[in-house]
Amino acid sequence: MKTITVPTSRTYLVKVGSGLLSTLGAEAAAVSKASRVCIVSDSNVWPLYGKAAQESLQCAGFQPVSYVFPAGEASKNGETYLSLLNFLAESHLTRSDLLVALGGGVVGDLAGFAAATYLRGIDFIQVPTTLLAAVDSSVGGKTAIDLPAGKNLAGAFCQPALVLCDIDTLHTLPEDIFRDGCAEIIKYAILFSPELFTLLAQTGLDFPREEVISRCVELKRDVVTEDEFDRGLRMLLNLGHTFGHGVEAQSGFTVSHGKAVAIGTAIMARAAASRGLCSSADAEQMLSLLKLFGLPTSTEYAANQLVQSALSDKKRSADTVNLIVPYTIGDCRALPTPVSDLQSFLEAGL
Amino acid sequence: MKTITVPTSRTYLVKVGSGLLSTLGAEAAAVSKASRVCIVSDSNVWPLYGKAAQESLQCAGFQPVSYVFPAGEASKNGETYLSLLNFLAESHLTRSDLLVALGGGVVGDLAGFAAATYLRGIDFIQVPTTLLAAVDSSVGGKTAIDLPAGKNLAGAFCQPALVLCDIDTLHTLPEDIFRDGCAEIIKYAILFSPELFTLLAQTGLDFPREEVISRCVELKRDVVTEDEFDRGLRMLLNLGHTFGHGVEAQSGFTVSHGKAVAIGTAIMARAAASRGLCSSADAEQMLSLLKLFGLPTSTEYAANQLVQSALSDKKRSADTVNLIVPYTIGDCRALPTPVSDLQSFLEAGL
Repeated sequence: MKTITVPTSRTYLVKVGSGLLSTLGAEAAAVSKASRVCIVSDSNVWPLYGKAAQESLQCAGFQPVSYVFPAGEASKNGETYLSLLNFLAESHLTRSDLLVALGGGVVGDLAGFAAATYLRGIDFIQVPTTLLAAVDSSVGGKTAIDLPAGKNLAGAFCQPALVLCDIDTLHTLPEDIFRDGCAEIIKYAILFSPELFTLLAQTGLDFPREEVISRCVELKRDVVTEDEFDRGLRMLLNLGHTFGHGVEAQSGFTVSHGKAVAIGTAIMARAAASRGLCSSADAEQMLSLLKLFGLPTSTEYAANQLVQSALSDKKRSADTVNLIVPYTIGDCRALPTPVSDLQSFLEAGL
Repeated sequence: MKTITVPTSRTYLVKVGSGLLSTLGAEAAAVSKASRVCIVSDSNVWPLYGKAAQESLQCAGFQPVSYVFPAGEASKNGETYLSLLNFLAESHLTRSDLLVALGGGVVGDLAGFAAATYLRGIDFIQVPTTLLAAVDSSVGGKTAIDLPAGKNLAGAFCQPALVLCDIDTLHTLPEDIFRDGCAEIIKYAILFSPELFTLLAQTGLDFPREEVISRCVELKRDVVTEDEFDRGLRMLLNLGHTFGHGVEAQSGFTVSHGKAVAIGTAIMARAAASRGLCSSADAEQMLSLLKLFGLPTSTEYAANQLVQSALSDKKRSADTVNLIVPYTIGDCRALPTPVSDLQSFLEAGL
C-alpha cells in the first residue's frame, strides 16, 4: 500500500493498494465520529462492491444506508442531486454524519457535491472504483454536477476526509472503461513526467497499478496543493479537456470522458505541432502512446461544433479561452487564445 | 451612512444608509472586474427597484441581465435553484462575472447559493430590501435552499463581496413584513445587548433605522467572525429558531419566518422561566417587547408536531438538540437537550 498526504485547506490521506475495501469501516472510524453513513453508488458498482462496503462499515459500528442511482454520466444532473439531498434528509443524517462515494467519477462528483452542500457540508470519503476516478476525480476536492448547458457547470471545492483506492476493484472494470482512465494517466505523463511517459510506452496497458496510480496522485497533489481553488496552475490539468468536453457534449455524452480527453489531447498535440509550438516528433510520440493504449485520436465533429461547446467552458474569462498546449513531453503551458482564433487553432489539430 | 467591516475568510464591507441603491454600479465596479452581471430578484421587489439597480449597473459599464422568480419562501427550493443555474449558464456568465441579490432573505439565500456553486463559485453582492435580510440573512455568508424535509437543509458558506443596504427601500415594506425583521432585531437585543433592548422598548416600531440596523450587523459580525462555519458560538443566533422553524414547517410556510422566530423566542422565554433558568420578570420583559412590536407570542400547533420538525434541524448532533436558552437579557446559552426531553421542555413554553 502507498499513502499520499494531500495538504490542502483540509489535509487528508490517499491510500492506494490491494484489499483496501475491507478496511473501509476501520478507516472511516479513524477520520469520523459519524453514527449514520450513507453509501452513494451506481447500478454498476453497487452489485459488485456494495455488500463488502456495507459489511465493513457495520463491523466498525456504523449504521449504513445506501443511495444507488442508474450508472452513467446522464445521472450526474440536478435532479439526481436533489433526490440524493432529499434522501439524506429523510435518512436524518446530521452534520457529524458521513457520506461514502463508492464508484467512478460520476459517483464521486455527485456524492461529493451533495456532501459539500447537505446541511452546508458534511464529511465524505472517496472510494474510487475506476481508474479514472482513482487518478483524477477522487483527489483534489472538485465536486460537480452537469447542467443542460454543459459539464460540471455547478459544484463546489470540497476536500474529502479520505480517499481509499482498492486496486483490486479495477479488475472488474470493462477494458473499455479501464482505457478511459489511461487517457488521464497519459495526460499526467505529458504534463509533468517524461519518466512516467517512458514507463507507459514500455509497458502499455500492463503498467504496474499501485506504482503508476500513486505516482499520478502525487503529481496531481502537487498541483492541487499549489492552486486548490483553480485560479492558475491547476488549469494545466485541463490538457485535452477544453475540446474534449466539446466532443462529449456533441455526442450527447455517448463518447466517454476518457476517450474525449484522448481526442482532445491528440487535437492539442497536432495543433501545437502545426503552429510550431511543439516538435512534430514529440507530437507523434504523444499520438503513438494514446494509440498504444487503444485510445481514439480523432473525431468526426466539425471545428465550429466543438468551438461552440468550448465557449461554455468554465475556464473562459470574457473573450479568451485558456488552451493548455503541450510544448514538449513534461512541459505544457496555458495559452490564452482569443475566441476569434479558436476555430482556426482547432482546425489545425483535427 | 455607516460602514461595517466583516473580517471573515473573505473580508467585505456592509454599507447601511439612505440612497445607496443608486450607487450599486459604482460599488460593484469597486469590488469586481465582471463584465456580465445577473440581478436575481423576486416578483415583489423587481417592479419596485429592478430598474434603478439595472440603470446604476449600466451606468457603471456592466451588462446586466435579470432573473426574477415568484416571491415567497415556496420559491426557495431545488427547482428554482436549478433553473437559476441554467439561466446563468445560458447567459454565459463566466467565473469573473457577478451576481446581485436584490430582495429579502429568500432572494439572498437562493441567489447566494447559486453564486456559491455556479462554476464552483462566482462573486455576489447582497442588496437586502427587507429589514430581516438587512439585519440577518445578508450578512455572514450562510446561503441555502429548502428541501421538502425542512428549511435551509442544503446550502453553502459563502461570503458576499459586499452588502449594500439602502434603508430607503424599507419604506415600501408592508408593515407586516417590516415586523418580521423586528423579531430578529429583538433577538439580537436579548442575545447580546441590554442597551439595544432598552432603546427598542422606548421607541417601539419607530426605532432609528440606520443606527439600529448597523448595530445589529455589528453584533452579528462579532459572532460570525468568531465562528464563520457554525461550529459553536454561531448557534446562539438560533435563538427562537429551533421551534420557530417547526412553526413555519407545520404551517406549510404560511407563518412568516419573523413571526415564527417571535413565537419560538416567546416559547424559549416561557420555558426558561418555567424551568427556573431565567427570572419571570426577564421573561415577561421579552414577551412584552415582542408584543410592543405587534409580534405573535403563541402558536396553535401541538408540542409533538413542533418536536417532529425540530428533529430534522441541522443543529442536531445524534441524540441531542442544542436549544438556545435566554438566562437574562444579554446572556443566552446553548443547552444540549436530549431528544427524549424535548417535548416536555417545549410544553413548558407553549
